Amino acid sequence: MNLILLFPDDFVSEGRVRLSGRRFRYVLKVHRASVGDVLRIGLIGDRVGTGRVTSLKDEILEMEVDLYQEPPSAPAVSLILALPRPKVLRRLLFSVAALGVKRIILLNAFRVEKSFWESPVLQDENIKKQLVLGLEQARDTILPGVALRTRFRPFVEDELPELVRGTCPVVGHPGAEALCPGSISGPATLAIGPEGGFIPYEVEKLVSCGFRSVNFGERILPVETAVPFILSRLC
Amino acid sequence: MNLILLFPDDFVSEGRVRLSGRRFRYVLKVHRASVGDVLRIGLIGDRVGTGRVTSLKDEILEMEVDLYQEPPSAPAVSLILALPRPKVLRRLLFSVAALGVKRIILLNAFRVEKSFWESPVLQDENIKKQLVLGLEQARDTILPGVALRTRFRPFVEDELPELVRGTCPVVGHPGAEALCPGSISGPATLAIGPEGGFIPYEVEKLVSCGFRSVNFGERILPVETAVPFILSRLC
Repeated sequence: MNLILLFPDDFVSEGRVRLSGRRFRYVLKVHRASVGDVLRIGLIGDRVGTGRVTSLKDEILEMEVDLYQEPPSAPAVSLILALPRPKVLRRLLFSVAALGVKRIILLNAFRVEKSFWESPVLQDENIKKQLVLGLEQARDTILPGVALRTRFRPFVEDELPELVRGTCPVVGHPGAEALCPGSISGPATLAIGPEGGFIPYEVEKLVSCGFRSVNFGERILPVETAVPFILSRLC
Repeated sequence: MNLILLFPDDFVSEGRVRLSGRRFRYVLKVHRASVGDVLRIGLIGDRVGTGRVTSLKDEILEMEVDLYQEPPSAPAVSLILALPRPKVLRRLLFSVAALGVKRIILLNAFRVEKSFWESPVLQDENIKKQLVLGLEQARDTILPGVALRTRFRPFVEDELPELVRGTCPVVGHPGAEALCPGSISGPATLAIGPEGGFIPYEVEKLVSCGFRSVNFGERILPVETAVPFILSRLC
């Protein structure tokens, strides 16, 4: 937690917050904070700044907060991800939020196991929990939007053309002949397939929406490694 | 498993292997292979090629193998990693092996928790297991070398000068003023600190060995995300 993320409900009056639970314990145990200490804070969807601890007792932390700085800039990349297995997804949501991606679409594909869609990781509160951890890690405050799309074809035909407008859309595909360009300036849309990749029909549908099918070298990377590896080139 | 990794012990005669256990089950369950099918294989430390299934019964898989191609090229990056927490380390070994890094040093640092050094993840066989999974993922055959260094100062003073010779050494440090260059051509040595970063003394010691202290943007990334993100720029 490199920043303590605040929510509107935490405010007891203007510039004063009261925290308990996870954040209280973290500040006590990891920051080993005491009254008078100054901690990095940020308000969800708003600016970042500092909080001065005014009280720390009875499982309650009180701070006077000052929000004076914009959160870090975000890469102009939307991420379309074939739904990965739940354990991987949980870590990816954390990682992708830390990387600053603000738009994530979890998409069905032929090689996505149906059972993945029933995982509790996909419940709103669990998605938000991972995203918040990622924001706290990267000192960001802007929550990414996560959309779930369980039907590939309607998504690609009805929504995707609008989504990719004005961006450079690429689909990472180990079989592709073209190597991904070293860097893309301007907004991008990145699609990443499931284990085993998108099937040819799916790649074709993406290509018909303007996607370039590219590889990222000879190595097939696990999705958790591939996402930061590729985003690093696109940003 | 995008490639079935073979070991010298698997060979029953020239060009013929017999597999059981994990690899047998994977081929049966995931590849759903049957006699006559051709699978990607590679011999540890050697070339890659194909194996034709000649028998699949009694929990034993037999193949005729042909090794005809070099494994993928490897990035010329050595990685010095302050020992991360065991769960993270296990996944990182897998990820780093898939990325093709061939030299990994797990180093102690002030902010590394002492208990991490007692984790079973650090046992030779467990390290090797994760590295093999990473090679199988990326279709590689060259096992990375992993060295454990429990004392920071002797390592930096006695070993590091030789290790960085002829490379561009950089230490990722969120507080650093310089942004990491977009790409480094030629061999590099990358050092990454623990959660909370290297302490100033440690950064100074690295700088005295020729390391440049660089940041990778405003965001503090979790180490599992930072490693592929940074390697993507260095390769």
